[in-house]
Amino acid sequence: MSSTRTLIRGGLVITASDEIHADVLIEDGRIVALAAHGSGTAEGWTAGRTVDATGKYVIPGGVDAHTHMEMPFGGTFAADTFETGTRAAAWGGTTTIVDFAIQTPGGSLRQGLDTWFAKADGKCAIDYAFHMIMADVNETSLKEMDLLVQEGVTSFKLFMAYPGVFYSDDGKILRAMQRASSNGGLIMMHAENGIAIDVLVEQALAEGRTDPRHHGEVRKVLLEAEATHRAIQLARVADAPLYVVHVSAEEALAELAAARDKGLPVFGETCPQYLFLSTDNLAEPEFEGAKYVCSTPLRPREHQAALWRGLRTNDLQVVSTDHCPFCFTGQKEMGRGDFSKIPNGLPGVENRMDLLHQAVVEGKLSRRRWIDIACASPARMFGLYPRKGTIAPGADADIVIYDPHAEQTVSARTHHMAVDYSAYEGKRITGRVETVLSRGEVVLEEREFKGSAGHGQYTPRSTCQYLD
Amino acid sequence: MSSTRTLIRGGLVITASDEIHADVLIEDGRIVALAAHGSGTAEGWTAGRTVDATGKYVIPGGVDAHTHMEMPFGGTFAADTFETGTRAAAWGGTTTIVDFAIQTPGGSLRQGLDTWFAKADGKCAIDYAFHMIMADVNETSLKEMDLLVQEGVTSFKLFMAYPGVFYSDDGKILRAMQRASSNGGLIMMHAENGIAIDVLVEQALAEGRTDPRHHGEVRKVLLEAEATHRAIQLARVADAPLYVVHVSAEEALAELAAARDKGLPVFGETCPQYLFLSTDNLAEPEFEGAKYVCSTPLRPREHQAALWRGLRTNDLQVVSTDHCPFCFTGQKEMGRGDFSKIPNGLPGVENRMDLLHQAVVEGKLSRRRWIDIACASPARMFGLYPRKGTIAPGADADIVIYDPHAEQTVSARTHHMAVDYSAYEGKRITGRVETVLSRGEVVLEEREFKGSAGHGQYTPRSTCQYLD
Amino acid sequence: MSSTRTLIRGGLVITASDEIHADVLIEDGRIVALAAHGSGTAEGWTAGRTVDATGKYVIPGGVDAHTHMEMPFGGTFAADTFETGTRAAAWGGTTTIVDFAIQTPGGSLRQGLDTWFAKADGKCAIDYAFHMIMADVNETSLKEMDLLVQEGVTSFKLFMAYPGVFYSDDGKILRAMQRASSNGGLIMMHAENGIAIDVLVEQALAEGRTDPRHHGEVRKVLLEAEATHRAIQLARVADAPLYVVHVSAEEALAELAAARDKGLPVFGETCPQYLFLSTDNLAEPEFEGAKYVCSTPLRPREHQAALWRGLRTNDLQVVSTDHCPFCFTGQKEMGRGDFSKIPNGLPGVENRMDLLHQAVVEGKLSRRRWIDIACASPARMFGLYPRKGTIAPGADADIVIYDPHAEQTVSARTHHMAVDYSAYEGKRITGRVETVLSRGEVVLEEREFKGSAGHGQYTPRSTCQYLD
Amino acid sequence: MSSTRTLIRGGLVITASDEIHADVLIEDGRIVALAAHGSGTAEGWTAGRTVDATGKYVIPGGVDAHTHMEMPFGGTFAADTFETGTRAAAWGGTTTIVDFAIQTPGGSLRQGLDTWFAKADGKCAIDYAFHMIMADVNETSLKEMDLLVQEGVTSFKLFMAYPGVFYSDDGKILRAMQRASSNGGLIMMHAENGIAIDVLVEQALAEGRTDPRHHGEVRKVLLEAEATHRAIQLARVADAPLYVVHVSAEEALAELAAARDKGLPVFGETCPQYLFLSTDNLAEPEFEGAKYVCSTPLRPREHQAALWRGLRTNDLQVVSTDHCPFCFTGQKEMGRGDFSKIPNGLPGVENRMDLLHQAVVEGKLSRRRWIDIACASPARMFGLYPRKGTIAPGADADIVIYDPHAEQTVSARTHHMAVDYSAYEGKRITGRVETVLSRGEVVLEEREFKGSAGHGQYTPRSTCQYLD
Repeated sequence: MSSTRTLIRGGLVITASDEIHADVLIEDGRIVALAAHGSGTAEGWTAGRTVDATGKYVIPGGVDAHTHMEMPFGGTFAADTFETGTRAAAWGGTTTIVDFAIQTPGGSLRQGLDTWFAKADGKCAIDYAFHMIMADVNETSLKEMDLLVQEGVTSFKLFMAYPGVFYSDDGKILRAMQRASSNGGLIMMHAENGIAIDVLVEQALAEGRTDPRHHGEVRKVLLEAEATHRAIQLARVADAPLYVVHVSAEEALAELAAARDKGLPVFGETCPQYLFLSTDNLAEPEFEGAKYVCSTPLRPREHQAALWRGLRTNDLQVVSTDHCPFCFTGQKEMGRGDFSKIPNGLPGVENRMDLLHQAVVEGKLSRRRWIDIACASPARMFGLYPRKGTIAPGADADIVIYDPHAEQTVSARTHHMAVDYSAYEGKRITGRVETVLSRGEVVLEEREFKGSAGHGQYTPRSTCQYLD
Repeated sequence: MSSTRTLIRGGLVITASDEIHADVLIEDGRIVALAAHGSGTAEGWTAGRTVDATGKYVIPGGVDAHTHMEMPFGGTFAADTFETGTRAAAWGGTTTIVDFAIQTPGGSLRQGLDTWFAKADGKCAIDYAFHMIMADVNETSLKEMDLLVQEGVTSFKLFMAYPGVFYSDDGKILRAMQRASSNGGLIMMHAENGIAIDVLVEQALAEGRTDPRHHGEVRKVLLEAEATHRAIQLARVADAPLYVVHVSAEEALAELAAARDKGLPVFGETCPQYLFLSTDNLAEPEFEGAKYVCSTPLRPREHQAALWRGLRTNDLQVVSTDHCPFCFTGQKEMGRGDFSKIPNGLPGVENRMDLLHQAVVEGKLSRRRWIDIACASPARMFGLYPRKGTIAPGADADIVIYDPHAEQTVSARTHHMAVDYSAYEGKRITGRVETVLSRGEVVLEEREFKGSAGHGQYTPRSTCQYLD
Repeated sequence: MSSTRTLIRGGLVITASDEIHADVLIEDGRIVALAAHGSGTAEGWTAGRTVDATGKYVIPGGVDAHTHMEMPFGGTFAADTFETGTRAAAWGGTTTIVDFAIQTPGGSLRQGLDTWFAKADGKCAIDYAFHMIMADVNETSLKEMDLLVQEGVTSFKLFMAYPGVFYSDDGKILRAMQRASSNGGLIMMHAENGIAIDVLVEQALAEGRTDPRHHGEVRKVLLEAEATHRAIQLARVADAPLYVVHVSAEEALAELAAARDKGLPVFGETCPQYLFLSTDNLAEPEFEGAKYVCSTPLRPREHQAALWRGLRTNDLQVVSTDHCPFCFTGQKEMGRGDFSKIPNGLPGVENRMDLLHQAVVEGKLSRRRWIDIACASPARMFGLYPRKGTIAPGADADIVIYDPHAEQTVSARTHHMAVDYSAYEGKRITGRVETVLSRGEVVLEEREFKGSAGHGQYTPRSTCQYLD
Repeated sequence: MSSTRTLIRGGLVITASDEIHADVLIEDGRIVALAAHGSGTAEGWTAGRTVDATGKYVIPGGVDAHTHMEMPFGGTFAADTFETGTRAAAWGGTTTIVDFAIQTPGGSLRQGLDTWFAKADGKCAIDYAFHMIMADVNETSLKEMDLLVQEGVTSFKLFMAYPGVFYSDDGKILRAMQRASSNGGLIMMHAENGIAIDVLVEQALAEGRTDPRHHGEVRKVLLEAEATHRAIQLARVADAPLYVVHVSAEEALAELAAARDKGLPVFGETCPQYLFLSTDNLAEPEFEGAKYVCSTPLRPREHQAALWRGLRTNDLQVVSTDHCPFCFTGQKEMGRGDFSKIPNGLPGVENRMDLLHQAVVEGKLSRRRWIDIACASPARMFGLYPRKGTIAPGADADIVIYDPHAEQTVSARTHHMAVDYSAYEGKRITGRVETVLSRGEVVLEEREFKGSAGHGQYTPRSTCQYLD
């Protein structure tokens, strides 16, 4: 029996709530027991494979609740496939992604979901699940929501931006929220006033303001805050919970905080790019700013402190990547002379756990909060807990051995994402993923990739556990 | 020379800032001088006509900045013509109205304005001016805004409600605000999220909730507050001032107050119906609730205290009537079995000054604040000051002699509006208009009508004087 | 070896973060391991004592961070000794109390602390620790703070109320906060403006308003909110964290929430009496209201919803009892004819876990949040974590087997506190403590008391872990 | 008869509400009439003295509601006597001051008031009134408040700062507010937490931080905001209005704004020094910073914008000077080596009207708002309206002819205050007082002083007119 067992010895087990010196016993892909390190009970354990974690952290595998592998955008596709993207995720200590299946306007949710099932099937190095992007809210798709919730696709993304593409008007949003209120689904919102923004885009281009930095200027802070406020009010009318994706502006965060003070079930996500990058990057010369074009856009540096504060005060609960990489050459370049044609998105699925550990090193977060926002809370938020996001008897053995003292420098030359640049090129980080287990199988072993496309399984989800 | 002179003796002259015992000398339609009552100077004055105001108030004629005479709505027309409506206004102590000319979608502002000039020309008992309703914001109409501002139509109303009729989306609103920012115009906003409301209307009707009270329930407080917040943010983006019409909900008022605390040029109007009536009226049996259907709707009684407070704290600056009467018989009845077909609007142009004086009697307002919100502030807000709204040398002699002790009971049987019901039927009021002068001419003399259709003149306006 | 081992089988282990079906292995007073129930590992475990927890909850023993055993007050003493009080605590599922040692004005902290050590030594059924009440902030006592922190008394309570008794003025408060800022101590604050309250007390008594309900009326909501705000500002000036005890008013909570939105290290505690009782109780006839006299006082019923919301939003982190019982006969009666002479305090140490479970049953809290506010957060707040407050390898085996389905009725006839009334007399509750372990020893076994005075040990504390 | 008449012709009459081209007729010390300039009525007027105001402003004389002539402070006296101070005021366009009589601890209000009557009697160039500083709130002085209100001393200043000197604790404050609530008096508050500040002063001095700039550092923004909040809450408990003097910090202003949004009768004053000077001045080398030592202290430059905004939004209603000059040589120098010994106060009574006009020139205020905050509102606030603060028939003929185009440079070499420095030395200002009338008598005529000590009369006041 011990041949299927793995034993992790001597590390500091860190979860969202505890830091304990414990050995972890794994059997048949699940964590079966924890025992105090050095106790007779722990000493008595044997296993086919023993991992020495002395001096290391033993943490839950990361859960990245916002990725866009192979996403079509403006005539091209995000550069990472499910194969390359999930492999890079594993390198970065993430063992579960929740990607977005997309409904085509005129098509059904089912068609969209099946398309994405097909893309991911047999390709992933780690487990995966799906949210559903609703690009066409109508009587039929509203009814389909119920079915998707039942089969484990329990969250639905709507857009207040991108008129003519993904945009839903307030009436459609209200209807979808009402449906979610009755079927237990969670509405995820891209909160930017896209109708107003498109006016400013048109005016900027007409006036010759075509550089990437203008992307940041026209997508104004006030228009993110406004949409965030509006989404909250619509959710109140519908009596539905709300999850706002990629919050980047202090003023938008203030809307979330005000709602949460009222006790409303309103949640917020931010991303590493908003925590570590700024409009300074968008203004990099030689069109380099295009590398940093995403929506919501990067904000002036002053917003970063507010976002860190929001993570500490739990007004923001989740850090995801919104990983949606486009190569500079050939893809980002489509927008030379017209920032509105730059594909929106940044690579990051491989960098998240490290960047957030760097924040621990710098005193911005406690270790437990690091695991909370990167593992436990996204798992809870999207119905994956306690299978994912924690280290406890019964949980999936998705475990990362993390060396808190290793030094590394982020670079496109060494990363594993299929994209020709890094958003964090040259950044020095203390801490590194050493070994990664996914359901007890070794995916990464002392920084050697041992995984395989197809190991990763589709993982249906229950409804948002923050609403218990 | 004294034959063209009028002298008002012995009253208490009340303006927005002062209460003085002074005699008022009028010449050629204008106030020429004020002198302390009983002074040799005052005693030395002579005039062709002398009005004894002993024991009475001498106040500026009311300025009602929001009326809709003969307005088309849902296949019918508001019951008061410019002739009947302005006559009723005079009976109620109002000497200037600012009505709304309407652009037809597909038509020009000019065409709309000319139509309304034609309706009013030669009909009015008192002076009048026009705002412009923009139902079709486009390149042409944006350019026309500049011309209208130059000729004295300096305010433009947009609707966030009524999709398919007057509705402008956020992009159109932003463009119009930008234009106003550059030409000095003032955007007036009907702030309700009409897109969301129409979903709720459809759902209510589908479920058989067709009574007038459902009109109030679907037009939710949160959706007024949301739209108010959104309009403010769009105005900030455009760097434009904003005037929100018919504020009825405490939560919407809170948005205005927050904006004003930031020092933003944001203004708000409420109406007597929101101060004195409530959803209790909308729930009156036998379809009587239809008499009280207007948008924004009447709110639960608790909101009234907030609105009175807003008037005292100057978070609301103006009380207008939104006078838009429809007869119960034949007009309001169009909505039996479907509240959405009830023509929206209430009569009130004749009641405003009295209702607000009743608030003075009840200690809700000071006398000066009564004159401020009913005369001076609307005149300042819409560029009519100091010709209208005050009693000072140089101002138009639009003056009301008001008996603060007279008792009256409001009733459709005695009112002068061309509508078969009163929204305040049976309400007892202390205070009554006795005599009214318009540019020095007697329109009402001890409650006898002496005016004439056509005395009232079109009055071009300068831009908003609150922005000095 | 297994003779010193205890095994808890088959229950649902609930911590602040997890709910898992796991068996718990205890050895030498500590939790040594958890294993998935039914797993081979778990099945393989043997122990001298096995507790069958099938169908029950296995939860950490409660941590009551605010008790006053044998406290002197107005010439009498709180009715529970450390012996009776800790026994009652155990009956109610609480396995650690943090009581308050009191400095006498003119005396040293050391003297006060030693007095309380002597009171508790050899008497307690469960573990205990001490906070220090500073009644005399001066150069000497400020220096003593450093020593106390080093020996495990890491929190210091100050009073903005009770002039002439415990009261510290703002200068003393500021000095103590500055000291805490440098030595890692946590200032706990009784936040009521006692100077102003005493004026109102004097006026009430002078006017013959002497009944217990006037106790609630003079200790005004605004004066709790004011003091809370002031304490927060002083803490900001001192750059120190702050813990506000027994928050009872919505307006005080709002001050905490505003501070926390700014990211300040400000924490709040409420008590069961504020969650379940109200001024209605204070107004009970026949002087029965005296039973409910405590400070801060009970508030009108409407405040309860705000406090529950605060517990959910984490603007309040801890529920303690402020257990300070005085018998109705002979003690509370001292205040007949003068509410200011009623000893302040309520019994509750035995009721807390059950009352909060009732809130779980009623949907006000999740099960995990129940454990968080009653066990984990108080332990973290006061430096007892992870020895106390959780179930994890390495933690003290302070464990409660809780039957979530048992029905009980609270009554003085059946409770174990040494006081002649219950504040919750007749209240029906679903859920009951069945078995209690303290450091692995059985204190209560299927509702039979097996503990002993003196088992409980003094437990030095580290500094506040919320500040990591 | 015309020999006692004065006629001001051709100027622009500016009041808080109007700007009119009118001639002003004065008789027997009062304004008797206004007539449109150029009208036959105006042309017909004759007078013994005619002032040509063509191209000038005709404004109400300034009302400075906060001066301290000859005030004792720390063993010395404010350098301006009532004679020199009121003469300087007249040079600066101010025609009324409200100074502070001071109760001596242990003494009665009456004694204090009589002392100040004696100081001022026969000395003043312009009219004057008194507030009462209560340094000893007790049963006797509380009763005296009623008498003072009846004889026209209707406002009472309390201090939350200066323990041991003027300080009142919260209980005394509450009692005085309760009394004011019943007798119509207005409590004026010096809102700084002096108890906490004195701790910081002691610590600063002990650490050798003795320079004037440390005066600003220890009197922290948070401690002004805290006291402001506390005063507001106490006023709510007492159901009394509140006027906060010399507001200097943005955070304190925010407390006022929040209270006013609730509709509370809370008012605020700021002073020119907070609008034009900053901590940069306090940090001037060579002990020059001492010139700028006053309490509340000057703040960092960023606060100025908030104060200007507060004046525009009417969250601040009054600009007074807190004129309390001490010579640099011999007086300010008392604090060399110990900032706490620097006499607190700045000269300014002569500069206020000009400095605020400069703000008009710079677009920070409208002309009407200039008159409002400097003349009308202080007069209304302290019961002097409409005798003072406006230009209307019946008002005292306190009138300033102001040249809006004249250029001047502020300097101690040219000012008329009895102090050896100017706080605004070298500041260039557009606008200048030309001629000043006090009750119809010429005090200044084309910048020649024509007044006399003793012309100024004591002016009893009615209660606060903002509470009508």
